[in-house]
Amino acid sequence: MTIQPFNQAIIDETKANLDQLTKPLGSLGRLEELAVQLAGITGEVSPVVEKPAIIVAAADHGIVTEGVSAYPQEVTALMIDIFVRGKAAINVFGRQIGASVTVADVGVNADMSGQPIAHHKIRFGTRNFLNEDAMTEDETLAAIAVGRELALEQINKGHRLLITGEMGIGNTSASSALVAAITGADVGDVVGTGTGLDEEARLKKIATIREAIQNRGINKDTAPLTVLAKVGGLEIAALAGVILEGATQRVPVLVDGFISSAAALVADELDPAVRPYLMIAHESVEQGHKVLNEYLNIKPLLQLDLRLGEGTGAALAYPIVEAATKVLREMATFKDLGL
Amino acid sequence: MTIQPFNQAIIDETKANLDQLTKPLGSLGRLEELAVQLAGITGEVSPVVEKPAIIVAAADHGIVTEGVSAYPQEVTALMIDIFVRGKAAINVFGRQIGASVTVADVGVNADMSGQPIAHHKIRFGTRNFLNEDAMTEDETLAAIAVGRELALEQINKGHRLLITGEMGIGNTSASSALVAAITGADVGDVVGTGTGLDEEARLKKIATIREAIQNRGINKDTAPLTVLAKVGGLEIAALAGVILEGATQRVPVLVDGFISSAAALVADELDPAVRPYLMIAHESVEQGHKVLNEYLNIKPLLQLDLRLGEGTGAALAYPIVEAATKVLREMATFKDLGL
Repeated sequence: MTIQPFNQAIIDETKANLDQLTKPLGSLGRLEELAVQLAGITGEVSPVVEKPAIIVAAADHGIVTEGVSAYPQEVTALMIDIFVRGKAAINVFGRQIGASVTVADVGVNADMSGQPIAHHKIRFGTRNFLNEDAMTEDETLAAIAVGRELALEQINKGHRLLITGEMGIGNTSASSALVAAITGADVGDVVGTGTGLDEEARLKKIATIREAIQNRGINKDTAPLTVLAKVGGLEIAALAGVILEGATQRVPVLVDGFISSAAALVADELDPAVRPYLMIAHESVEQGHKVLNEYLNIKPLLQLDLRLGEGTGAALAYPIVEAATKVLREMATFKDLGL
Repeated sequence: MTIQPFNQAIIDETKANLDQLTKPLGSLGRLEELAVQLAGITGEVSPVVEKPAIIVAAADHGIVTEGVSAYPQEVTALMIDIFVRGKAAINVFGRQIGASVTVADVGVNADMSGQPIAHHKIRFGTRNFLNEDAMTEDETLAAIAVGRELALEQINKGHRLLITGEMGIGNTSASSALVAAITGADVGDVVGTGTGLDEEARLKKIATIREAIQNRGINKDTAPLTVLAKVGGLEIAALAGVILEGATQRVPVLVDGFISSAAALVADELDPAVRPYLMIAHESVEQGHKVLNEYLNIKPLLQLDLRLGEGTGAALAYPIVEAATKVLREMATFKDLGL
């Protein structure tokens, strides 16, 4: 199966329906754009996005050995415990929107077998991409396949919208490397403070990632899958799989912040047909996110200075997406009024 | 009763609680600012905003005779009919957040007695403020009192958050005049296209409002109540009352777009103690809103290019406000983890 282009007749019919609603033309702004995009994604003039499913992909990163993160690697496994107990931010926001939360171990560097989560560990964290490729291409393909499988499971359970989330200490480094490598932006412009680095540590992170990209021999001709394998992450590859499978199945995927958007960027490189399907929930404080959004030419829905990940920004944006679909189904039309 | 300043001990305790949650410090960005503000407003370290109540104040405007609106005055009454039938955008978004919707006639220029709404008509629309004061000061005070009464009714029913909405053909003209008069901004910088004027009509609207402010003899020394009476609107005065009463009762009021924010601006002029209580839900496309927000030094929560009114932007922003409070109540703390 391949990702289908939008059906122009459905787009046109949805626009005409919006113009028939009892409100000034275009007065719902970005909600109207969203309604049209959702019609395009689903192929339905009255799209439904109820029953959102949040997929939180977790993995560790060998690059943390270089001191690129404010938190130790153990926090990845610790946070999974909090997810399981329903007490992390994503659980709180997930409950608020009535979403299921599926946590998947794609490559946590700890034994997770005792946790009631989806077990798809490909390896115990990526390799340190300063010195060697983070993943083999086979591992990368396996992680993408895990993401596709996770997406398909939720779709088969009847969920009509997927939300991407992630947990992985060090994953802003992998994401920054991916964004620099793919967009051609300078590493200094895409590396932020992550979960809370000071300026000295941020400068060291920039130097590390710059050196790593050089060491990995990445240039503008390197194939997308190879770039992902060299400097990416297992959870990022899995989320690229979620995004690609959602588009293939015509189920909307609401992409969260910087890490999830790096996965969307990779998905777009792997299959440019995914571009019109992409919806980015919020613009992170992490400065590489702005670069990435401009490269994809996508304006995120929210600007709330978030930098938490887990899918939190997407869960917060979900009610806006839902509202866009309800407008099409529940508002009076001028025709209803006999006008 | 008067509006109380925030209790610094409660603010400090709430900030400390946020820093104890299992997330990087400050990583929930504006949600954390909101949580602190809500603690300040309510005087509670764990504020609750459930059961929102939307108050839609409706009134007409004599200034429409000058051709300042893209829609005829009859639309105000027509939209009330759609509100009552539950088929306007605000009804759709209100249902989505589980809010009550109260529509109040404060000054519609039509007989509304047959409609099941709150009847508080002060007069059949304001006077044309190009030629005479829109309202007497007594009428203005009466409209503010209506707003206070509407707010108190909802608070007494147990609603813990109020949302302001409005309907009134011509009310961007009254709001633009208020913003120019109060902030000192040039009329040309605060007048937008309203519900859909072309550029020629917008220029005429600018000229009309500029002339009106001059005709009314408003200058920077004119008392706020007098400015409101001269160029304001009955629904705007009522919403100023809602905002003032909410602050007095320490119940958060989520202010919608340009018109509602003009009411907030007026409330702030009438009683500067209200300033820390103000929460503006979204930044409207209407260009005067940006001027107003900068003057109040408030950053709205959403930027979705809305220009519909009715309270729609505030209803869309409500889940974010709710999420800010849930974070304080439902997330694990480092203490819970024994860290």
